[in-house]
Amino acid sequence: MFETAELGHKIAKSKYKTDEPILREALLDVQFDLAEAKKFPVVILIGGVDGAGKGETANILNEWMDPRHINTHAFGAATQEESQRPPMWRFWRALPPKGEIGIFFGSWYTAPIIKRCYGETNKSELQKSLEDIVDFERMLTDEGVVLIKFWFHLSKDKQKNRIKELQKNPKTSWRVTEQDLAHLKLYDKFKDISGYALRETSTGNAPWIVIEGYDANYRNLTAGNYILEAIKKRLQNSNEKIRKTNTPPLLQPIDNLQILNALNLGQTIKKTSYKSQLEKFQGQLNLLTRHAKFKDISSIIAFEGADAAGKGGSIRRITQAIDARIYNIIPTAAPTQEELAQPYLWRFWRQVPGKGRLTIYDRTWYGRVLVERVEGFCSEQDWLRAYAEINHFESQLVENNTSLIKFWMQISPEEQLKRFEERQKISFKRFKITDEDWRNREKWDQYQAAASDMIERTSTEIAPWHLIESNDKYFARIKILKTVCNELERRLDSL
Amino acid sequence: MFETAELGHKIAKSKYKTDEPILREALLDVQFDLAEAKKFPVVILIGGVDGAGKGETANILNEWMDPRHINTHAFGAATQEESQRPPMWRFWRALPPKGEIGIFFGSWYTAPIIKRCYGETNKSELQKSLEDIVDFERMLTDEGVVLIKFWFHLSKDKQKNRIKELQKNPKTSWRVTEQDLAHLKLYDKFKDISGYALRETSTGNAPWIVIEGYDANYRNLTAGNYILEAIKKRLQNSNEKIRKTNTPPLLQPIDNLQILNALNLGQTIKKTSYKSQLEKFQGQLNLLTRHAKFKDISSIIAFEGADAAGKGGSIRRITQAIDARIYNIIPTAAPTQEELAQPYLWRFWRQVPGKGRLTIYDRTWYGRVLVERVEGFCSEQDWLRAYAEINHFESQLVENNTSLIKFWMQISPEEQLKRFEERQKISFKRFKITDEDWRNREKWDQYQAAASDMIERTSTEIAPWHLIESNDKYFARIKILKTVCNELERRLDSL
Repeated sequence: MFETAELGHKIAKSKYKTDEPILREALLDVQFDLAEAKKFPVVILIGGVDGAGKGETANILNEWMDPRHINTHAFGAATQEESQRPPMWRFWRALPPKGEIGIFFGSWYTAPIIKRCYGETNKSELQKSLEDIVDFERMLTDEGVVLIKFWFHLSKDKQKNRIKELQKNPKTSWRVTEQDLAHLKLYDKFKDISGYALRETSTGNAPWIVIEGYDANYRNLTAGNYILEAIKKRLQNSNEKIRKTNTPPLLQPIDNLQILNALNLGQTIKKTSYKSQLEKFQGQLNLLTRHAKFKDISSIIAFEGADAAGKGGSIRRITQAIDARIYNIIPTAAPTQEELAQPYLWRFWRQVPGKGRLTIYDRTWYGRVLVERVEGFCSEQDWLRAYAEINHFESQLVENNTSLIKFWMQISPEEQLKRFEERQKISFKRFKITDEDWRNREKWDQYQAAASDMIERTSTEIAPWHLIESNDKYFARIKILKTVCNELERRLDSL
Repeated sequence: MFETAELGHKIAKSKYKTDEPILREALLDVQFDLAEAKKFPVVILIGGVDGAGKGETANILNEWMDPRHINTHAFGAATQEESQRPPMWRFWRALPPKGEIGIFFGSWYTAPIIKRCYGETNKSELQKSLEDIVDFERMLTDEGVVLIKFWFHLSKDKQKNRIKELQKNPKTSWRVTEQDLAHLKLYDKFKDISGYALRETSTGNAPWIVIEGYDANYRNLTAGNYILEAIKKRLQNSNEKIRKTNTPPLLQPIDNLQILNALNLGQTIKKTSYKSQLEKFQGQLNLLTRHAKFKDISSIIAFEGADAAGKGGSIRRITQAIDARIYNIIPTAAPTQEELAQPYLWRFWRQVPGKGRLTIYDRTWYGRVLVERVEGFCSEQDWLRAYAEINHFESQLVENNTSLIKFWMQISPEEQLKRFEERQKISFKRFKITDEDWRNREKWDQYQAAASDMIERTSTEIAPWHLIESNDKYFARIKILKTVCNELERRLDSL
């Protein structure tokens, strides 16, 4: 991986003096086009060995380009708010919006590589981290992010020299830290492990660019030219239809027997039984949220289902049992301007709860494979890849001690019609049935097919779908409350 | 303040049973209208003595209304990110957008009252905090926020009873904390101090509503009815033009001698001198950002000035000297959808830097008294009150150890014309002069008058304006760099 980065690359001062102003001008131009087009963001990762010019590169890029549209992030120790959430949360919150450039100094690679160097993880744990990274980066590039990954390399001798030089000069000696000296001792190990990590994560959509870091002129021009070409190329392509649309179709059962129409929707509960069970499970839920360990987990309850399936009413039966200071409800509507300038999962990452908190989503990230799929708001490619992206998102939540409980509330089309007609009779404005509701109803079969695919492809062991037969509201609410209690209990007991 | 809240208010169970469903329905209706109109947010503060039903009120409001459009915030100890910023930052970030309801459990009153009770502050410090609160709340209500402040009160005897009741019942005994018992001992002191605080901050735009908290029926109906009426009234008024427009004009000097046209714009620096001074001050600035105490302060540099005054070039001369991982540049453009749903200072609060960080604003919160005033984007009332609001914002920054450095870059209209014409000749897209630039130029005198008012009214001792004669770019850049160095040095020395 590092062979050509130990050849002693060098650019003569005279050539640099000629080339630098031209490159600089071209970079400013392309950055301007990027900001005007607002079609995609650029993320530049800066990694590599100490002393190879990582900081200098971040600085020169800010000097060459318009720093008002560059955001440089150095990721040190996680803050309190960050450490309560999955490790990727801090990177999600730092993502640049479309049209902007983010320079990430230290990235999602830092922890996996360093931990392995210090023997805190074993090889298969490193391998798992790298696979997660490949998934994450594929999502980013599929979402249109131009992801540039620079690795600045120095041979062992050159690194020693560089550190000596820095130490000698009183103006730069402060830059050599204890940690640098410790890392130098680990040079061979670090090279092996980072080489492995780079090979495993150098994908077609996001290849690693290894640059020899000893000669500043070579380093700067190489990095600058690469950025220039990468943005240029994407700007040219962004007007073309680059996504293939000849994706294979999903399998639809010929006999129309789907998981959703196989449910027994005739199940009911009598009112008296409902009242006593409601009280019982709400009491149990209240106790669970006051459990000593509830502060150590995050909780998410996700609701999906057709219009009028009873999501709102079920949510109220949950929140009635819980102190208002603990929960937060997110009604998922059309994305805002700021959300549209980001990958589609960004808006849900934003709301991920900290420890001891419960977030309830009234409709969720599954919008991509339901409404966006059926209404054609995204391409087939986009919703097809979403299944894996969502599973990946959810596995990060669960690994971070989140109790993630997902409900699909199923009603029959006849029951929906009955509820729509009832709502039209009553005067409560909030239950008004809109034209859109009727239009969605016409696509009932398409929505059901999409939901069936969704359940099949995202019902994982760690985050299964709970299917709720909801023609009878009492039955649905009790089944939901009982499930929430069981799931929370299971999670709390597992700690 | 608490006399009528010790009378033993009570509502019979039968009356509650009749009134509650009606109130509930009305609240849901008005909440629906609020969410549909999206014209203003509602903030409900819940304060008072322990055991007076604060938590229960938050819960019942969530139960009565649609909890999907209510956000309940309990403010405990500040998180790491919060404690690095001015105390009000955590409340700014929790403000609900237009159309939503925020319930604040604990608020900006908690710390001032509690600190005074425990003798950590003296009376004049409390007084100062309360004056700040009055300013802040006036800003909120002027921005359209419906601010409802509930104080739940119990007489001393009733509080003792309540705590005993809670302790006796095994289901509720967990709710009585050590802190509650400690607070009970301080009852008289707490009553005196909170009474004083309530009187000082019960203003026409945001009066305190004191509610006797012993009887849950009385408490719930009183709070619910008040919220209902408050939102209803505002919804009715929000279509009317309620703001008076007959505000007194500002004084304009008859002889047209303003602070800005009194500047000597003929000052220049020769190129050789520029080069050596640039190097000198950039070196000094670099050292200052590596000063041991730089990590203990936050830094903000704010730029204002006419188009083509040289703001961008000056910013680059600053950032060249600083590690890219330290700073962040905010180019202030038109607000986003999320920003428009909040008070106008919200977008700047969002970006307030933590410790050891520098934020550079290319145009700032002064937009309200410059472009928004001149172009009529806000009402006269709005920009007139902005001077005091901005001073208040800045004083909070400075009190929180922020080095706040503000620059006004002044050029002559002739110099601007020259620069515009030069830019039209060159091919760099990023320097393109737009029609809007020419239109703004036509309003030169209006902008100058607005800037003169701004400088006069917001050049405070703690955050003075630095006026930069900018017809000569070299002169301007050196004066700016030198000022930044001096100001940072002064702040670092003062620690």
